[in-house]
Amino acid sequence: MAKGPFSLAAADVERLIRLLAKLPGLGPRSARRVALHLIQQKETVMRPLAEALADAAEAVGVCSRCGNIDTADPCEICADPRRDPASICVVEQVGDLWALERASAFRGRYHVLGGVLSALDGVTPEDLNIETLIPRAAEADVTEIILATNATVDGQTTAHYLTERLEGCGVTITRLARGVPVGGELDYLDDGTLITAFASRKGV
Amino acid sequence: MAKGPFSLAAADVERLIRLLAKLPGLGPRSARRVALHLIQQKETVMRPLAEALADAAEAVGVCSRCGNIDTADPCEICADPRRDPASICVVEQVGDLWALERASAFRGRYHVLGGVLSALDGVTPEDLNIETLIPRAAEADVTEIILATNATVDGQTTAHYLTERLEGCGVTITRLARGVPVGGELDYLDDGTLITAFASRKGV
Repeated sequence: MAKGPFSLAAADVERLIRLLAKLPGLGPRSARRVALHLIQQKETVMRPLAEALADAAEAVGVCSRCGNIDTADPCEICADPRRDPASICVVEQVGDLWALERASAFRGRYHVLGGVLSALDGVTPEDLNIETLIPRAAEADVTEIILATNATVDGQTTAHYLTERLEGCGVTITRLARGVPVGGELDYLDDGTLITAFASRKGV
Repeated sequence: MAKGPFSLAAADVERLIRLLAKLPGLGPRSARRVALHLIQQKETVMRPLAEALADAAEAVGVCSRCGNIDTADPCEICADPRRDPASICVVEQVGDLWALERASAFRGRYHVLGGVLSALDGVTPEDLNIETLIPRAAEADVTEIILATNATVDGQTTAHYLTERLEGCGVTITRLARGVPVGGELDYLDDGTLITAFASRKGV
């Protein structure tokens, strides 16, 4: 009986652990823990999760307009008439969209790039959801494009590229403010944030 | 649109995140990350996981003899004739059994208690898989019971209780050695381990 890192008596359990271990944030050890938890609570946790996964796999798709994930296409946000049609917020990932929605930070519509330009990872503009952004920005209603890519090197490179691409669309291009995060203590912040916060200081 | 901590546009995604967030080691944030990962890799990750969960929920059960988890009852270990019938290793959880199996530390059979005695959590002997251990220990083949409960207060209380219960079964009762773990540096070990390692020192 040759035993690999996941090898146990039951092949079904092995397969489950191997699949769980591939999820982000889980490794072999935590996958085993999750698998045991699932098996020991078969009716209350395991079967509902299996059903939820199958249902979501069936129902959920990508919005052809903005790249959001939803059961409808166009997605609920794109279809909502109460959303301000004048501004589009460009984010890297659906997770960023969710974060802004949780914060109720924005009442316009979104555009999800699906990643960032990265020379290291070989991500080129063709790999991202950029070509569909240009005609959206050129629509009559749209007056502002907010570039909400992450404040990382790749995020900023992507924002810079988008700024160039969006020139001539006749829209205002903005980006999120930089500074001390709410609740942040100066002593714990990095030099880059402190320098930016100083340079962008405002009158009170 | 009232938004809770998991609330997103699609109810199917919400339900998936809520279930994932209940798994050990996952919280709302990591559950969202896992859900996005699953949705974005629907065919390669999400559907296989849904199937693996449904299959395992169908096939896997608890061994009526030792408490191990397997698709067969008695489990593969209990049924394996190459396993030494003379010794039974008592562990708290199936995860402990897996750890000993991975290490190939033991070639006998197991008995899984399904927990430890705990006054704080209100776990009594009736809640554990103890009543089935006594007749197993009294079987003619069995000569040694190894108490491999954790080296915690509750684990030791349980081991002590089992020692009393097993008196009169005519078996040798042993427990795992205590000392400096392999690869351990003295500087980083707790006082309890150091004191035990000193008290249990051996001639070279």
